[in-house]
Amino acid sequence: MPRVLLTGFDTFGAIPVNPAGKVARSLDGKKINGATVIARIAPGVFFKSIDFVKSAISEVKPDIVIMLGEYGGRSMISVERIANNLNDSTRYGLTDNEGGSMQDRLTVPDGPVGYFTTLPIRAMVKAMRKAGIPADISDTPGTFVCNHLMYGILHYITIADLPIRAGWIHLPHLPSVAAMESNLGAPSMSVETAVTGLSAGIESILNHKEDILDPIASAWQI
Amino acid sequence: MPRVLLTGFDTFGAIPVNPAGKVARSLDGKKINGATVIARIAPGVFFKSIDFVKSAISEVKPDIVIMLGEYGGRSMISVERIANNLNDSTRYGLTDNEGGSMQDRLTVPDGPVGYFTTLPIRAMVKAMRKAGIPADISDTPGTFVCNHLMYGILHYITIADLPIRAGWIHLPHLPSVAAMESNLGAPSMSVETAVTGLSAGIESILNHKEDILDPIASAWQI
Amino acid sequence: MPRVLLTGFDTFGAIPVNPAGKVARSLDGKKINGATVIARIAPGVFFKSIDFVKSAISEVKPDIVIMLGEYGGRSMISVERIANNLNDSTRYGLTDNEGGSMQDRLTVPDGPVGYFTTLPIRAMVKAMRKAGIPADISDTPGTFVCNHLMYGILHYITIADLPIRAGWIHLPHLPSVAAMESNLGAPSMSVETAVTGLSAGIESILNHKEDILDPIASAWQI
Amino acid sequence: MPRVLLTGFDTFGAIPVNPAGKVARSLDGKKINGATVIARIAPGVFFKSIDFVKSAISEVKPDIVIMLGEYGGRSMISVERIANNLNDSTRYGLTDNEGGSMQDRLTVPDGPVGYFTTLPIRAMVKAMRKAGIPADISDTPGTFVCNHLMYGILHYITIADLPIRAGWIHLPHLPSVAAMESNLGAPSMSVETAVTGLSAGIESILNHKEDILDPIASAWQI
Repeated sequence: MPRVLLTGFDTFGAIPVNPAGKVARSLDGKKINGATVIARIAPGVFFKSIDFVKSAISEVKPDIVIMLGEYGGRSMISVERIANNLNDSTRYGLTDNEGGSMQDRLTVPDGPVGYFTTLPIRAMVKAMRKAGIPADISDTPGTFVCNHLMYGILHYITIADLPIRAGWIHLPHLPSVAAMESNLGAPSMSVETAVTGLSAGIESILNHKEDILDPIASAWQI
Repeated sequence: MPRVLLTGFDTFGAIPVNPAGKVARSLDGKKINGATVIARIAPGVFFKSIDFVKSAISEVKPDIVIMLGEYGGRSMISVERIANNLNDSTRYGLTDNEGGSMQDRLTVPDGPVGYFTTLPIRAMVKAMRKAGIPADISDTPGTFVCNHLMYGILHYITIADLPIRAGWIHLPHLPSVAAMESNLGAPSMSVETAVTGLSAGIESILNHKEDILDPIASAWQI
Repeated sequence: MPRVLLTGFDTFGAIPVNPAGKVARSLDGKKINGATVIARIAPGVFFKSIDFVKSAISEVKPDIVIMLGEYGGRSMISVERIANNLNDSTRYGLTDNEGGSMQDRLTVPDGPVGYFTTLPIRAMVKAMRKAGIPADISDTPGTFVCNHLMYGILHYITIADLPIRAGWIHLPHLPSVAAMESNLGAPSMSVETAVTGLSAGIESILNHKEDILDPIASAWQI
Repeated sequence: MPRVLLTGFDTFGAIPVNPAGKVARSLDGKKINGATVIARIAPGVFFKSIDFVKSAISEVKPDIVIMLGEYGGRSMISVERIANNLNDSTRYGLTDNEGGSMQDRLTVPDGPVGYFTTLPIRAMVKAMRKAGIPADISDTPGTFVCNHLMYGILHYITIADLPIRAGWIHLPHLPSVAAMESNLGAPSMSVETAVTGLSAGIESILNHKEDILDPIASAWQI
């Protein structure tokens, strides 16, 4: 039975609740299309987040890794196509959860510029929309901890040559966060709506089961 | 026991499901803060919608009338402050549900330019936000059937001198509508989220019970 | 020869340059389609702005009054359809230029809820677009000094029964204001682009010269 | 004297005028901070655009290559940080100027996933803002011909080991394009505003003259 490692974050900076953590926890232990979802909550910290998910991969031995984050301002579930080897937290005026800041620094100094996701993102987006959930492919996961962790894990899987598909999904603000004065006007999505979308997306990955191991590199082109 | 008449619409043009109808039906028969909610689904048609809600008022004899509509593109529940005596469906490229179109025509030829809502909208928005639902006061309900019906009913209540507070609440697209190719990128809100917001809003009106009859005119200033 | 009184503002709160003042000054003294433009810079202050423009009307004796303001966040020149008898500066977190703040207060306590512009706004918008300038009708001038002044002057013209068409045009931020860190992401429009649009709009009003005095009330329906 | 090759496009699909072509032509032959600008208009076609700019590089022998494109919907000049080895014109519902369409296909099948620009983009954005022009770093040039050409030229310069800094700048719609019914609401920027921004950006590159040849790889980190 395939295993899906689903990671989220808890609070991040001034945002009191994170949809990534809520959605990951909601799906923990669920069976979807013959696979089991195992959730873990990663620290919102440069490098520590990568180490944490590497450990979770060793422990859980998943076939699929889906990492979740929040992208305030986006209205849809966005499935990321690519992770970049760069960090720029300053442009958001944010630090990570231990006060860490990076500007124009690489995650892996001798690593490649980017990695494509190895999830079948087009099929996932189609499945989410069919389930009635607004979703789209995104061409950038930003330059903060989300992109950092996505890059770090795709790099690790590549270097360690693990038979794992992996990728990143961004969620809009939760309604309660969009209801804060400082965020008024931002779109939002409820936990329930996001869970419905995620479930449809995970289900669609598993419909590509025969593709899960080979060839990983072109998975995003399915 | 106070009675709240809650009106919604069903389908409108190319939009297959309307949050106004869904939310109104969800709250039909509910008790909120000592009041009973009675829902009715109005036709999405110029003038007929006004006649329909006038009849519903005669039948239901409400203390409060809250009319619901959909405003695609908005991210929050928006509580309207004012209704205007003008119609311009052409700017949306839309007709009403019987093909009717109006451009720069008045709803009531000898009526005043506008009516203020008689709901305590500031208190309602505060209550919705406190309940974790993104909400704001809006300064325009647009120039289509929603504004038309809001104006028509506020005019009717004024002319007939009825002891009824009334106003309009706009809801964002439902997620399934924002998931349609033609609407991609538009914010959305689930029925459950909207119902939570509406309930908090209705509850807050009833906390102003002593103000319900007098003076209605300044209710929006509470 | 018809006379067009064109009013603008100078600085407003944290915004160092105002497109309304720049554009008004740029057009001061210009002849457009047989009319002369006379510019005046109004104080950005509740009530004083109304007194100032009333005095300017007495002095200039215009056939047409066009009042300009800035609406940060809008991408197009927006020609206002309606002014409302209400003020709510608190929702913008702003005060006027003398620290004045109003919440849910009327401009004219016994005045009507709203006034329609008496400018041929549909023709104006068409002319601006034909000149290559993004423009649209707007259904709300907001609830700050712009709406306040628009209402105050339309009320004055109505009460004094003056043969003057009047209305309001909102301009986007200037590029230099959109380049400030606090405004990044907001659309902008250069003075030159706005002047081209304004000129086309004024020219189109004068093509409706025969309508200038009678009947004013339905000018916005032309 | 350093030479700056500035490329633009002419019409693209349904867009009748392209700011990239207009701005490139406006700056053709200009001296900026001791450098000469040489403009060329590239065909808006997959692969042909790359061949064209490669030829222009052979001919002009520039020290710096700045490629310009249009990104409808953006409000600022956006200086791209990265180009990706992927193409997806279908997501825009667009084809190139010869009807060509690509979905999930690589530009260089055995090329790296991405290339960082070798322009000092942070310094450029700072200079543009100082000149009063809204500008920002962008993390994605999209997945259409702009990204395709940016990737192709950065790949070529890398493979051929040329001492040339190169990168991409996206411009908003021109006002006349934002004034088209189909684009209403989109932000715009005039040719003059864009030229002022570009000039400030180019000037700032040349203030980093000593960095121009070595080390190119980290230019975007300046």
